[in-house]
Formats: sequence, structure tokens, C-alpha cells
Amino acid sequence: MSMDLTFLGTGSAYPSPHRGASALVLRTEGECWLFDCGEGTQIQLMKSQLKAGKITKIFISHLHGDHLFGLPGLLCTVSLNCSPTQPPPCVDVYGPVGLRHFLRVALELSGSQLLFPYAVHELEPTADQCPPEGVLSPKVTQSSDSLHPQERPGRTICLDPESECYSLFEEKQFAVKAFRLCHRIPSFGFCVQEHDRPGRLNSQLLRELGVRPGPLYGQLKNGETITLENGRVVKPSEALEPDIPGRKVCILGDCSSLLGEGGQRACRGADVLVHEATLSDGHRERAVEHGHSTPSMAAAVARSWGVGRLVLYHFSQRYRPASLQKETQEEDDVLELQRQAEDALTGTGTDVVLAEDFLTMTIPLKRPQHGPGSGENVC
Amino acid sequence: MSMDLTFLGTGSAYPSPHRGASALVLRTEGECWLFDCGEGTQIQLMKSQLKAGKITKIFISHLHGDHLFGLPGLLCTVSLNCSPTQPPPCVDVYGPVGLRHFLRVALELSGSQLLFPYAVHELEPTADQCPPEGVLSPKVTQSSDSLHPQERPGRTICLDPESECYSLFEEKQFAVKAFRLCHRIPSFGFCVQEHDRPGRLNSQLLRELGVRPGPLYGQLKNGETITLENGRVVKPSEALEPDIPGRKVCILGDCSSLLGEGGQRACRGADVLVHEATLSDGHRERAVEHGHSTPSMAAAVARSWGVGRLVLYHFSQRYRPASLQKETQEEDDVLELQRQAEDALTGTGTDVVLAEDFLTMTIPLKRPQHGPGSGENVC
Repeated sequence: MSMDLTFLGTGSAYPSPHRGASALVLRTEGECWLFDCGEGTQIQLMKSQLKAGKITKIFISHLHGDHLFGLPGLLCTVSLNCSPTQPPPCVDVYGPVGLRHFLRVALELSGSQLLFPYAVHELEPTADQCPPEGVLSPKVTQSSDSLHPQERPGRTICLDPESECYSLFEEKQFAVKAFRLCHRIPSFGFCVQEHDRPGRLNSQLLRELGVRPGPLYGQLKNGETITLENGRVVKPSEALEPDIPGRKVCILGDCSSLLGEGGQRACRGADVLVHEATLSDGHRERAVEHGHSTPSMAAAVARSWGVGRLVLYHFSQRYRPASLQKETQEEDDVLELQRQAEDALTGTGTDVVLAEDFLTMTIPLKRPQHGPGSGENVC
Repeated sequence: MSMDLTFLGTGSAYPSPHRGASALVLRTEGECWLFDCGEGTQIQLMKSQLKAGKITKIFISHLHGDHLFGLPGLLCTVSLNCSPTQPPPCVDVYGPVGLRHFLRVALELSGSQLLFPYAVHELEPTADQCPPEGVLSPKVTQSSDSLHPQERPGRTICLDPESECYSLFEEKQFAVKAFRLCHRIPSFGFCVQEHDRPGRLNSQLLRELGVRPGPLYGQLKNGETITLENGRVVKPSEALEPDIPGRKVCILGDCSSLLGEGGQRACRGADVLVHEATLSDGHRERAVEHGHSTPSMAAAVARSWGVGRLVLYHFSQRYRPASLQKETQEEDDVLELQRQAEDALTGTGTDVVLAEDFLTMTIPLKRPQHGPGSGENVC
């Protein structure tokens, strides 16, 4: 199954003509999952090859405007452009407490009717997740009783104290969890874990045993032991190649550090870690003061989790895309951010990528797993 | 005093890469007044020569998302980029009831602190201003009691039954009124009236009378009658050239028609009328059904008010800018919209302009008024 990531906005604080506000799409066959939705995301989507109408799930890492203010408009535009006879199925939106109220007020006051239903599933932050001034009072987070006409009831999801994660959902191919980050307001990271898949049938062995393609193949593939006419018992473990490990993609919202063990537990060994790097290491103090990270801070997380690839994004607007930089530019060189992360990851084998608006990155299938921890990407 | 209009977004329904959502700026020396603020307006501002930090007043015609959803982000970005020691003065925002609540919720939930104060002055729509389903229930329009930390108390402005206008404010150089439009939700038009200014001193006459430049000139300019040493009495009316009539710019939100006499009374003889033309005359029924206008409907308003120039904007995204149209394009030709309005205005002397994103149009000073109704632009 194909899987890719497309960055629609890689700038921090606000959108600009050369960097959109935060938004990226994880696409698997037929479905787009949108992570954050800063102002202008719908315009970036139109400029890309992605189809806004294919968005089935939206994840908002935190409620700062540069991650949120594009959401009402995006939903309205998807509705205006969808076929009335084939509207999208329910769009599930996940994000911090307060998101439901924001969306309800924006849609109600603007008189917006959608042609499809939506539901907002809110993550309940813990008290220690942000400084006291960052805690929203109940008056601004509590919605009125009545749902928007197209709104379906959403869940309120609390931290599982054992895993220190929020279990968002588990479906046929994926399980998605969230975990806590430290920022100026409650902020979350998301871990998308693809389920392992059974390996291919060892057709050579089966031929040798005299098993012909047919129902017996299906039974083995489904994990059932079969008995041949000659009495030979064939177990799935001998007829199937090793499992193909699922891919793991972790996307973190704004943060200066992790909170608790949730991130570490969920994200260990991730194929891709998307981590903010708002300012360079030279501005570390200022970055942390504003709840942000630098490249070597992101690299430390990648090293600690043993990830395959670290993707940096959410750059201060002072860092112009490399293609727009002047040759003589020495200050605010975005490539310096990459070098800082690479230096901090020397010897780990983790590669570092700088995201730019409209970068699309495929996440290849892994090789079958021959032993614990030996899963590798098929490059 | 220089005065110009810059269109930042001329598309309807949603922003696209070739047409921004509704926004335009009326600029006079040193100040920018923003009319409507669809999603992406801050990005369009960055692409233009205008400075977002110069915006002192914002007018929202109605609460549909394509006129509103850019407002919270714009305020946040102005704040992030302004000098902490020289923040803008209070930004006054005018718009329909509900706007205060929207802005408060968006700023509070996103944890946005501004470096400058703002106030929202709400226009109270009348009961007959929109179909019953367009009336917002009090639960979605009433704000909580507490102001946002940077919010200053705003006024609630009701219709003056005599003039059928809302008097927004009157200051040294301008008076601004609003009036009612028919749309699917309460929508308003705005009339910016520059005050007439006293004409220049007739220096030839004064020389003949032996009056030298000095304090006596000032007295005449201030409207005072003077007596010369030889007993000759000089009245301002004989020493001053005729008044220079103030310019009048009228900007209408989405509408399929006017409601009451307010627009007619306020806008008669306007120099510039900015009027929507969402669809061509061939789609008139559909336009009206959705609360919108066609070019000949806009032209009828311009004709009835005797305006100097009609500017069409708010085009359906099906009409690509002329510069992006294919030579062979026959359907959805934006130039056809201009022709339809011109045809409807034949013989009136009113010219028709199609607005495109980033079009800037100067509004020249008028000639001194030699008799009632004879004010003319200095071209």
C-alpha cells in the first residue's frame, strides 16, 4: 500500500507568500489525513496534487492560530465543491479541548451548512501540560449544548495513565495515538502505526509439499494450520514468510520538550519523525522561552527514539526556502538548520530532511521482518 | 490628499490561487481601512505594497466565511510584526452582531495576545433584513461577559429610522455610514464620505484689494469676514474659490438587492461604487437565489445612484482573471461581465472597471464646485 507525506505549510507563527502556515497530509490509498490546518491551507491544497475532498480525518496538534485558523474555511470549501449526491463520509477531527467550541462558533456565526457530517473528538490535556497562564478557562472551552446541524457527537479522550498515551482510534490498517508535549498551550504529538501484515506464502515450499493454489492457501494466509491428504500437517509459521512490519509515522506539534513517557513509548523506531525546528541552535534560549525547539533538540528526540528519518519543519519565517535564498546569504540560512541536526545525529544512521511547502515524501514498505527489530525499508 | 483603493481578493465563496477571498483596502494618507477579510487576506497584504500595520479600521460586510475567516489571523500577524514600543493605536472593527463573539472566541481559544487594543462595534440588523433561516439565535451571537484582554468596549449601532442608515463615525475628514442589503444573512454596504473642503483663496482679487499674505488670509480661510484699513469689507465668500467637494466611495457586501432607502440616500452621486457581480446575467435566477447580483443588477444600482464609476468584484471562481483566460475561452469569460454592465449603463457616462487581485485605483480630488451638483473629478 502506498503511503506518502506532503507538506502544505512549513512556516511558523503565520502564513507568508513563501511559507504556508502549518499543514501536512499523510496519504494512503484513497484517503488523506490532514495534520494541522493553518490559515491558507485550502489554497495550498488547491496548488498541490492532493484533493481536499479526500480528507477523512483531521488532527489539530494545538489551538494556536497558525495551526487552526484554516479549518472552518477548509470544511466549507470541501462542502461547496463536493458532489451533493456523493458527499464525503463523516470527517473526524481530533484535537485539544476547545476545538469543538471553536468550530461550532465559526460555522454557526458564518451560517455555514456542510453537505457532510463531522465530529470533533477532544483530547483532555493534563494539568501539568502547560504553564498556568496557558490553561483555558472552562468558559471558553465549553460548547453550548446544541450541536451544529452537521455535527455528530464526538468523544472526549483522556490520557491512559499506563501508556501515557491517548488512544485515538484503531482500524483495519492503522492505530493512531497521541501523546503530550510541552508548549505554551496544550500541544500534542501523533503516532500513526500501520499494523504488521502477514508475509507472503512460501510458494516453493508449498509446491514441494504438493499443496496447490486454492482454498488451502487462503487458510494458511488466515493463520490456520492445515492437514494434507498424506497426513502432513502444515503450520502457517512454516508456510508464510516473515511478517511485514507496519510503518510508523510520528508528527509532533509545537514543543520545547516531551511530557512523560508517552512519546517515547509510542514512537520508538519510527520510520519518520516530523519535528518542529523553529529557530537555529544559536537561538536556543529564545526558542525554548517561546515553547519551541531547535534542530539539535529535534535531533536529540530522533536519537532517543531511534528513528529512521527526521524531517524538520515549522521554520521561523526568517528562514526563506533554500531556493529563494541569496547565494551570499550567511544569516538565517535554512540549510544551517539541516547541518545542525545532522551534526547532532552523526553516527546514528538517521537521515535529516528539511521540509519545504509542497515537498512530497514517499514512505516505502518495509522488508519482511526476519528477527526482532530487523525490519528495514525497501528502498 | 491622496486616496486609493486596492483589491486584495476578488473571488466569491472561497479563496483560490488565482482569486483571493473578499478584501479591499481604502488608503488615505497614512491610514488603511480594510473592507472584509476573507481567509488569506494577510498573505495577499504581504504580496501587495500595503502595510498591514497601517490598518486602523476594519469593516466586515457580513459574517460569511469568505469575508470573515481571515480576521483573527490578520490581527495576530499585525501584532507579531509590530514594534512593541510603537504598536498600532486601537483597531476599530465594524460589522454585524455576532462579530464580537467570533473574534473573542477565536482569540481566546488560540491563546492570542495582541500588542494593541481593539474594539468591535456591532451593527444591529433589522428583522426584515434576511430570510427567517438566516437569523442567528441569540445563543450564538451573545458574547460572554468578559472582554478579551486587549478588547475595549465597542458600541452597538442601531438603524436610524429617519435616514435608514447606521452612523458608524464622523471624524475630521470623513463620515462613514452603513446601510442594509438583502442577502442570505444580514449584510451591509458602507459609504465613506469625505467632507467638503474650503476652496483656495482668490489671490488675484486679494492683491487687487491690497490684502497681503498674512493673518488676514488665515481669517478669511477660517470663514471670518475682515475689514481693511480703507473700510472695505471682504467676505470669505468673495475671497475664496468654491468649496472642493469631498469624494464619496461606496462598498457593498454581498447582496441581491437593497433594503430601504438608506443606500440611495447615502450613496447618491458617489465617485466610486464597488458592487458584487458573482455570476453573469445569464445566471441571474441562480444568483438571486443565492442572494447575489449580476452585472446588470449592479449597473441598475449605479444608474439609480448616478455614480461616476462602477467597480465589479466578488466573481465566482469560475471566472478566471482575464490574464489567465485562454484565447479561445467563450464560457465563463470575465470580460463578458464587464460588457453586460457597460451595456446596461449606456448613455450614463458611468464607467465600468473589473477588479482583479492587486488592482490599485486612485480616486482623484474633485474640481471646486461652481454650482450645486457640478463637482467633477480632476482627471
